Amino acid sequence: MFVQISPLTEALPAFLSQHTYSSIVVLVDGNTKRHCYPHVKNLLPKHKLITIRAGEANKNLAVCETIWQAMTDAQLDRHALLINLGGGVIGDMGGFCAATYKRGIDFVQLPTTLLAQVDASVGGKLGIDFHGFKNHIGVFNYPAAVLIDTVFLSTLPERELRSGFAEVIKHCLIADAAQWKTIRRRDLGDQNWPELVNHSVEVKKKIVEQDPTEKGIRKILNFGHTLGHALETHLLANPARRLFHGEAVAAGMIMEASIAYRKKMIESSVLEQIEEYIFSIYGRVKLTDADLEPVLELTLQDKKNRNGQVRMALLNGLGSCQYDIAVTKTEMRQALEFYLE
Amino acid sequence: MFVQISPLTEALPAFLSQHTYSSIVVLVDGNTKRHCYPHVKNLLPKHKLITIRAGEANKNLAVCETIWQAMTDAQLDRHALLINLGGGVIGDMGGFCAATYKRGIDFVQLPTTLLAQVDASVGGKLGIDFHGFKNHIGVFNYPAAVLIDTVFLSTLPERELRSGFAEVIKHCLIADAAQWKTIRRRDLGDQNWPELVNHSVEVKKKIVEQDPTEKGIRKILNFGHTLGHALETHLLANPARRLFHGEAVAAGMIMEASIAYRKKMIESSVLEQIEEYIFSIYGRVKLTDADLEPVLELTLQDKKNRNGQVRMALLNGLGSCQYDIAVTKTEMRQALEFYLE
Repeated sequence: MFVQISPLTEALPAFLSQHTYSSIVVLVDGNTKRHCYPHVKNLLPKHKLITIRAGEANKNLAVCETIWQAMTDAQLDRHALLINLGGGVIGDMGGFCAATYKRGIDFVQLPTTLLAQVDASVGGKLGIDFHGFKNHIGVFNYPAAVLIDTVFLSTLPERELRSGFAEVIKHCLIADAAQWKTIRRRDLGDQNWPELVNHSVEVKKKIVEQDPTEKGIRKILNFGHTLGHALETHLLANPARRLFHGEAVAAGMIMEASIAYRKKMIESSVLEQIEEYIFSIYGRVKLTDADLEPVLELTLQDKKNRNGQVRMALLNGLGSCQYDIAVTKTEMRQALEFYLE
Repeated sequence: MFVQISPLTEALPAFLSQHTYSSIVVLVDGNTKRHCYPHVKNLLPKHKLITIRAGEANKNLAVCETIWQAMTDAQLDRHALLINLGGGVIGDMGGFCAATYKRGIDFVQLPTTLLAQVDASVGGKLGIDFHGFKNHIGVFNYPAAVLIDTVFLSTLPERELRSGFAEVIKHCLIADAAQWKTIRRRDLGDQNWPELVNHSVEVKKKIVEQDPTEKGIRKILNFGHTLGHALETHLLANPARRLFHGEAVAAGMIMEASIAYRKKMIESSVLEQIEEYIFSIYGRVKLTDADLEPVLELTLQDKKNRNGQVRMALLNGLGSCQYDIAVTKTEMRQALEFYLE
């Protein structure tokens, strides 16, 4: 896995000088076309641009079809390169389109959001949402390179930055108690982003390299995601209540930490500091009793389940996590109720 | 690559006894549901059936969507198994759906046509047609097993058998001159199918194992396919003229052999015996001058091209083949004209 954190002005020309491509296409959305593409445009030889609409709602098969069609119209052969310039949607969907076009062409991830830099771009998970299920259709495949430039973080709205920060928190909680102590002393605005991006990428890379296709240890990266994903999916249908991915994961981490506490895997003090810090950054997602059952139902589609039984990654201490832990519907309901109180 | 040629009554229970799956789904089309599923049904534990319409015209994204939806409705988790019971369409598309469902579940190929037994089921190429382009969207991925039972060949219409025979001919021409001598002494009805299936699978397996993702030597398996695919795609739009895959490849082998002859890679006697035998089995596809330009245009989308230039696999002797040979549009036009005369 080739991940480089450095200014694109150096990294991109260096990468291209080491590879030969028959043609180059850049995938952007409305936002990255305006804010990020100007940083990249002059670093590239002759290329084409494919523009899609921004937002998770567009991470679907219909948009894949327009991307595949644009690649076909550009007569891309198997030796072409697709550059994905954007957040998780662009990276996941663009990567999936590249990995399936003519059974796979090279692609490079240029993640522009904090979430994509610390999470989505590292680890080879590609895919799209399908009829309401997140990342339901996809493949594992590695980009030719992930080139991360933290200069893009300054283009982000605060809500976007806050969303990405949830994965930073997660990486600390599952793998590095010392780093957790550092970040929780600071508010969102006072974090050292280049350092945190570096740290998060290292944590994730180390885990992924041990278990690329998530048969074992990689599952700990799903901490907060079983209930987080279900919550995110549930609220997707209602534009006014829709959450950013990290906002849902932040809520999911509180819920799943409460399950770990009930199972006596963590102390009450650990649960309390997680709860306190996450609420201080994210506030509390407004949920009612009516939301509980649909969220619980959605956990049945979680990719980590086995024989219809939900399996979670749960903390067993600060900076430590266990995976494949069977969790009952009752335990999940209690976790949602804990969060609601 | 696990390929076994033996009665399914032994092979399928043996395979299942060595694996643990959370659930099993069988993908069939109208034909294989009627003719082949009865042979398989009682060899399986409790399972579900997904039925799609038969035919290459259904190897598309819309049908994938219905398969993914059926898999979702059945609440398949990552530990489920999809069994593809059918010809190339079922194997390629079912394999693609399995390889992309929740980023990949296990699948088993039970090829029921000669074409699928000697070609499609071996080698990990999965995918679908896209807006008129054959196998345009797909991935490389290996089934948990390919279980081949030649009993199914007796259920095939003659035209289907003849189509599959083209790949048998191809395997002889590119890799085994002695076997070519054997088959060309016999008409279609006199061939020893179990022996030929064995031989073809061995030839293909040996080549694919050297080069799974077709960076090099595997390209020789495309002999006859550059012009064959283009011809097949061109005639797809017109139901009355539509060809079976092998019929198109058979014509493509004559055309591409004529290019090899013009490039002094084979003797005239080799071209003549190929031409004579293939015409004796397949007759001549009716083409007019008006078909030439569209077929030539379609070769530009061939997956083996580089920088817009067509690259072919061409015979350089009986039982021997070279790949990545640049071929001009003029040479291809001459090949089509040679075939027409």
